Amino acid sequence: MNTRLVEVRQKVLKQNDVVARELRQQFRDAGIFVVSLVSSPGSGKTAFLERTLSMLGERFKVAALVGDLATDNDAVRLARSGAPVKQIVTGTVCHLEADMVKNAMAGWLPTELNFLFVENVGNLVCPSSYDLGEQLRLVLMSVTEGEDKPLKYPTIFNTADVAILTKMDLAAAVEFDAATAKKNIHAVRPGMKIMDVSTKSGAGMAEWIEFLIGQRTDAM
Amino acid sequence: MNTRLVEVRQKVLKQNDVVARELRQQFRDAGIFVVSLVSSPGSGKTAFLERTLSMLGERFKVAALVGDLATDNDAVRLARSGAPVKQIVTGTVCHLEADMVKNAMAGWLPTELNFLFVENVGNLVCPSSYDLGEQLRLVLMSVTEGEDKPLKYPTIFNTADVAILTKMDLAAAVEFDAATAKKNIHAVRPGMKIMDVSTKSGAGMAEWIEFLIGQRTDAM
Repeated sequence: MNTRLVEVRQKVLKQNDVVARELRQQFRDAGIFVVSLVSSPGSGKTAFLERTLSMLGERFKVAALVGDLATDNDAVRLARSGAPVKQIVTGTVCHLEADMVKNAMAGWLPTELNFLFVENVGNLVCPSSYDLGEQLRLVLMSVTEGEDKPLKYPTIFNTADVAILTKMDLAAAVEFDAATAKKNIHAVRPGMKIMDVSTKSGAGMAEWIEFLIGQRTDAM
Repeated sequence: MNTRLVEVRQKVLKQNDVVARELRQQFRDAGIFVVSLVSSPGSGKTAFLERTLSMLGERFKVAALVGDLATDNDAVRLARSGAPVKQIVTGTVCHLEADMVKNAMAGWLPTELNFLFVENVGNLVCPSSYDLGEQLRLVLMSVTEGEDKPLKYPTIFNTADVAILTKMDLAAAVEFDAATAKKNIHAVRPGMKIMDVSTKSGAGMAEWIEFLIGQRTDAM
């Protein structure tokens, strides 16, 4: 990697942090708890978010921003929950940046909002360096991906607050070793909170929703 | 994305292409057919490569380079095939570059070699811009990732030569719609060759090996 590229990247990251800090203050002032989601492509972020929006939407005002290189498939899927959803198309960029969130929010958000979810581009590397002004960052990992992912992509586990193990209904079929996976997460990030869910069966979703509501109460 | 960053990136890509072109010529002169593999984390690249090295190793001289952010887990797994394997640790970089391949090769390769495999970092975005001097680029996608991945990550399908659908043994359990997945691949890349495999059951592997040997014969 060439030195000039690294220098310019560091400058971009610094600019991003300034915008993210402003966003975080604005969200806090408006009483909005912001949760971002990162994972590999196909880990089940959108299904998990769709179910979260539906369950949480019964008691709170919720909305979502969703980043993708191309297509608005995810926005269409998420809109089925009834929540306001906006797509950010990133083109060839492998992550969301604070500026993209800021621009997407301009004039868009409902006046009263309790939770905003930001679904990042499916990628376990690039999103880790970009603060989006969120209060809680989730890293999702499906049981089909194998137990070693935390060791191979440590940065994303280090910058996230909670790890969500998805597609638990497939655990037996893929011979997923949950104890090893959790040991690997804790090797990278000691004490990290881990939650097991299946959006298909609904297992673990009620606990997740209660945890999330508690996090917002603590933060506000 | 800031204009200066884009300019510097274009310069880096141009330098990469120069190195990649040299590598390609050297590989061709040495009679080495080079195959690179890209996919999401957890799509089964390493398992597929391990089986490929074992099967192909019965009749040809084979070796592998494998890129990861951290750990040499994959190199250890691949070495079980008996083939020479070298790990490239990329740190925080989300892709391999031609320079990394060039440096890894210096003084390493056996004098007689028929196939070299280069396993990229698990990522569907970053690797698409970097030519590694390979003659064949595979994009792998597991049935657990969903049928829409080609539409959401078009660039990687556009820069690869063959799409490999992995973990076909799980297709029924995850209700994978193969016809839709293939339609989506062809929407992005009309006529792209698609092969279905299961490294667990071995289904599709013999066809893949025969195809690969044919590609090398045609190229040499």
